[in-house]
Amino acid sequence: MEHFKVIFQPEIGEVAVLAGITLMEVINDAGFELDFPCGGMGRCGKCRVKISKGVRPPTIREQDLLEAGEVEDGVRLACLTKVQNDMVVELAVDKKLKHNILMISEARSVDIKPHLQKIFVNVEKPMLHDQRSDWRRIKDSLLKNGYEYNDLKVPIPVLRQIPAIIREAEHSITLVTNGNEVLGIESQDTSKKMLGMAVDIGTTTVVGYLLDLYSGKVLGVASTLNPQTRFGADVISRVNFAGQDEDGLNKLQKTVIEAINRLIGEAAEEAGVSRSDIYGISIAANTCMHHLFLGITPENIAVAPYVPATGEPVVAAAAELCLEINSGGRVFVLPNIAGFVGADTTAVLLAAELERSEDIKLIIDIGTNGEIALGSKAGIAACSAAAGPAFEGAQISSGMRGADGAIDHVYFAERLEYSVIGGGTPLGICGSALLDTVAGLVELGVVDKRGRILTADKLSNSAAKRFAEHVVEHEGQPAFLLVSADKTGYGRPIMCTQSDIRELQLAKGAMAAGVKVLMEKLGIQTGDIKEVLLAGAFGNYLNPHSACVIGLIPMELEEQIRMIGNAAGTGARLALLSSDEYRRAGDIAGAVEFVELGSYPKFNRIFGECTYFTVQAKE
Amino acid sequence: MEHFKVIFQPEIGEVAVLAGITLMEVINDAGFELDFPCGGMGRCGKCRVKISKGVRPPTIREQDLLEAGEVEDGVRLACLTKVQNDMVVELAVDKKLKHNILMISEARSVDIKPHLQKIFVNVEKPMLHDQRSDWRRIKDSLLKNGYEYNDLKVPIPVLRQIPAIIREAEHSITLVTNGNEVLGIESQDTSKKMLGMAVDIGTTTVVGYLLDLYSGKVLGVASTLNPQTRFGADVISRVNFAGQDEDGLNKLQKTVIEAINRLIGEAAEEAGVSRSDIYGISIAANTCMHHLFLGITPENIAVAPYVPATGEPVVAAAAELCLEINSGGRVFVLPNIAGFVGADTTAVLLAAELERSEDIKLIIDIGTNGEIALGSKAGIAACSAAAGPAFEGAQISSGMRGADGAIDHVYFAERLEYSVIGGGTPLGICGSALLDTVAGLVELGVVDKRGRILTADKLSNSAAKRFAEHVVEHEGQPAFLLVSADKTGYGRPIMCTQSDIRELQLAKGAMAAGVKVLMEKLGIQTGDIKEVLLAGAFGNYLNPHSACVIGLIPMELEEQIRMIGNAAGTGARLALLSSDEYRRAGDIAGAVEFVELGSYPKFNRIFGECTYFTVQAKE
Repeated sequence: MEHFKVIFQPEIGEVAVLAGITLMEVINDAGFELDFPCGGMGRCGKCRVKISKGVRPPTIREQDLLEAGEVEDGVRLACLTKVQNDMVVELAVDKKLKHNILMISEARSVDIKPHLQKIFVNVEKPMLHDQRSDWRRIKDSLLKNGYEYNDLKVPIPVLRQIPAIIREAEHSITLVTNGNEVLGIESQDTSKKMLGMAVDIGTTTVVGYLLDLYSGKVLGVASTLNPQTRFGADVISRVNFAGQDEDGLNKLQKTVIEAINRLIGEAAEEAGVSRSDIYGISIAANTCMHHLFLGITPENIAVAPYVPATGEPVVAAAAELCLEINSGGRVFVLPNIAGFVGADTTAVLLAAELERSEDIKLIIDIGTNGEIALGSKAGIAACSAAAGPAFEGAQISSGMRGADGAIDHVYFAERLEYSVIGGGTPLGICGSALLDTVAGLVELGVVDKRGRILTADKLSNSAAKRFAEHVVEHEGQPAFLLVSADKTGYGRPIMCTQSDIRELQLAKGAMAAGVKVLMEKLGIQTGDIKEVLLAGAFGNYLNPHSACVIGLIPMELEEQIRMIGNAAGTGARLALLSSDEYRRAGDIAGAVEFVELGSYPKFNRIFGECTYFTVQAKE
Repeated sequence: MEHFKVIFQPEIGEVAVLAGITLMEVINDAGFELDFPCGGMGRCGKCRVKISKGVRPPTIREQDLLEAGEVEDGVRLACLTKVQNDMVVELAVDKKLKHNILMISEARSVDIKPHLQKIFVNVEKPMLHDQRSDWRRIKDSLLKNGYEYNDLKVPIPVLRQIPAIIREAEHSITLVTNGNEVLGIESQDTSKKMLGMAVDIGTTTVVGYLLDLYSGKVLGVASTLNPQTRFGADVISRVNFAGQDEDGLNKLQKTVIEAINRLIGEAAEEAGVSRSDIYGISIAANTCMHHLFLGITPENIAVAPYVPATGEPVVAAAAELCLEINSGGRVFVLPNIAGFVGADTTAVLLAAELERSEDIKLIIDIGTNGEIALGSKAGIAACSAAAGPAFEGAQISSGMRGADGAIDHVYFAERLEYSVIGGGTPLGICGSALLDTVAGLVELGVVDKRGRILTADKLSNSAAKRFAEHVVEHEGQPAFLLVSADKTGYGRPIMCTQSDIRELQLAKGAMAAGVKVLMEKLGIQTGDIKEVLLAGAFGNYLNPHSACVIGLIPMELEEQIRMIGNAAGTGARLALLSSDEYRRAGDIAGAVEFVELGSYPKFNRIFGECTYFTVQAKE
């Protein structure tokens, strides 16, 4: 998941913000006094801010609530403005930002309980009549200071450092420990310095959060496209590369490790700290990224019966994975649930605390493989739905990733309106716009229950007729024209074809069928579900109403939908800040009931039904 | 310590034997029926064997007990024949050797309790409705089979092997574990195969014993000169090299690791086994060799207050030290006692079980730095005596190492007699011959109490006068001529000069003073000591009577002296065969009271007294 820079002027400060977070959330988190009388619903128009750089086209509501001149000047509503590029925002506040980097994302509070401990101790100096070894001397001093470390183990790399450091430090040292294992020895008192990096390795992007492990503060954020992409865009092509290229697995591992090392460097530089002050890394990733990160073959995940090598928390030395942090640092990898329900889902569940929830909740992370979890403290079931790449804009005629130039939202107002990421000439549509388009067409009755685009002559209601001229023929099939060729960057029309709708039907059908199977499995009715949490990049961008209209999420649950941002990253941060939370992640992964859709009875029938559109067209 | 090959003919078999072991011991150990009516005292002359290759000059007793023709034919007494080179021995027995390699050295019995465990288990195969991870599947199968391994940890290198091995093995696998840690996974049932290598790293030689960790049998032995010698012959010059050469420490470590890897290869080839069947290595070494082996700087050992980095057992992964055994193998390094009383002494004490002995024993390992331990179950004290290189033949005018061409023993019979290692022309004398020479001269009164060689005119008794012509002048000082120039390989006379005697006085004085200090410290009288155990190469070669005559060991204890061979190697073997013994080594190292001679009050006076010769010349 990407993040962007928001500079608040005049001279207030700069923050790093997760893509998709609203300016309202950023402002609230920073503690600025700006009122949101309607609670951020985009109704009152009070939270005006002026965006002097990186402004995007106004939403329909902003067009209603703001003067034309204001819109022209870059005034927008903070509650409706999602951060989707770097921005400069003018605020009439006289407060400076306390931290020049904040990380805005929905993170629950946690009692910090570091995995690693730091102990400062003055060690007795040796004498001719007291030739105790350096290490013995350290242990004896610990005991004298009340630390009961009888079985303390010191690995050889640390042992090698002891003689020089203890003398250079004139016998005042700080030990870094993990339980009864010594991870490092440092000169003088460094016991107040301990940082960590929480990393979420996605198939497409890798995000790292630099944390102060004592305060829990986010000191820096860095993200990058997952450079493994050059060996294959999706999980399956990387699995193939790992199996077919002689050194494939090693190349894939090295590539992602290098990317993480770069992120660590960037975040550390941003925060003005040293890599060597970082002692812990937590990792959330889908099962394939998890295996590639650890250098474990992913081949058995990709073929039935889809078995991962391990589904338990893996603690490793950072050095053995060539991660460039403190030489004694440790890596805490979150556990996988199944071959296609990975440690990222475990992290999401940890962030959402589903296993302690009285209320039944549905958690959906939409992607090529969508993960769905349903349940409460009474029990959780999870599955993976093979949605295919439609949501990511792939295999869609005008499809593209959610990058600059992509239409990300479409509105069927008086005329067709849309917003473009970056604000320039549109180049194509990304998944969220495909959702909006099809949802709009379903609501208008332009697309029928079975997904067919009706030709102009068959459109019945008046609203639909407004868009009759958008219904065109493309390569012998009906299609809905979004932008005519002369208005696009590539000189090709941007449209939503009949095939695109078929792709979307398969994708949403798979997701909806997954939800249905889980409900059936747990005996839960739609009405029992108190909250629908959308995690991940796509979930953060999509229009919940559109998702309900196309039946990706049951219509009855529209009001229960809440976006939880990069919850996998949040889970990784929690697991890094607290060893209890990390252990809890292990318990969650072990307790979740995984449901294999492929072997679920009646799955094909359920899936078939779910490809239909059931919302009635508006009259 | 070296070993040699003894071939028993006709077609009986071949054994590897530690240098210095008698043929009687070899024959007894192999179970051959040969009688030793006098108990191996060299009195009855019954244990005749014919040595058809590698025969050495007869001892004086053999000259008495055997016919001249027999001596000529290579007949010798098994009880008096030490193995000091490869030999072919003819035996009139009709038994074959059961094992073609035996290891003869004094090893007490031990209850085998392997550090590592092997567990064969049939793992349930995955199915579409049962997608448990490979590792979870293994753990569940262990539990089902009654192994309670809830907290079993699997390191990443093993995790990487699991997917391929478990499938290749069709889910029948053997786990190798060390406590709750998995070290390896192997295809099919290999639970009966587990070997180990006990290694004694001396400053001069490195010896490795390949053991079957279930039966305790020695399957092979290999030894080599410590190739670190090229960076410095003794401990101090290696410490200097480690500190002064930019990459010195690394070079020294790499060199000894490579040597051990070669020994492993040789021993494995000899025994017809694979390196990968070796899972454990135990290491005995002096403190400096211990540090160099682990890549820890030895610099603080060499300067006051002589502090080692650690004095505790160090368990490491073989892979992290680049030791070429099974990739999951473990190294069990014995603990040091002090800067100059190392893990080799701990191993000797373990072999001798001094801490459980009712009787008070004195254990001496003679070398450039001699280690001395004294005590019983009531308490043990140990010290290191800086004897210097005289015992190893260095800094002695005609001195050389105990190699081919070295006179190793000298007899003052009717005329002067001597034996030469390898049986050829003498090239010089080694430490044991220096001892014999000086002891003989003291007994004859040729050397007085203060160590002065008396000139021929001052010799009083008749026996001494027989050797009057051997007393010569050399570079203005008196000297004792052992072999005239025309009879030596280098065409130079072999002699024992006044300076050589001074060197020996310093060496034996240091050792004797160490013994005295320990006795004083523990309040022990000479008469309280029930046994004197001589460990190590030199202790195994020397003539105990000579050692007592020169005062290296109190004369009253001559009858209590027993050679215990390479006891450091024995201790390493015990620690490898039993985790209890390894733990016990840790307890011993922690319990021994180290006495620093340099800071002991009155040490200089005691040392001065000990340089004298106190035995009265025979009349």
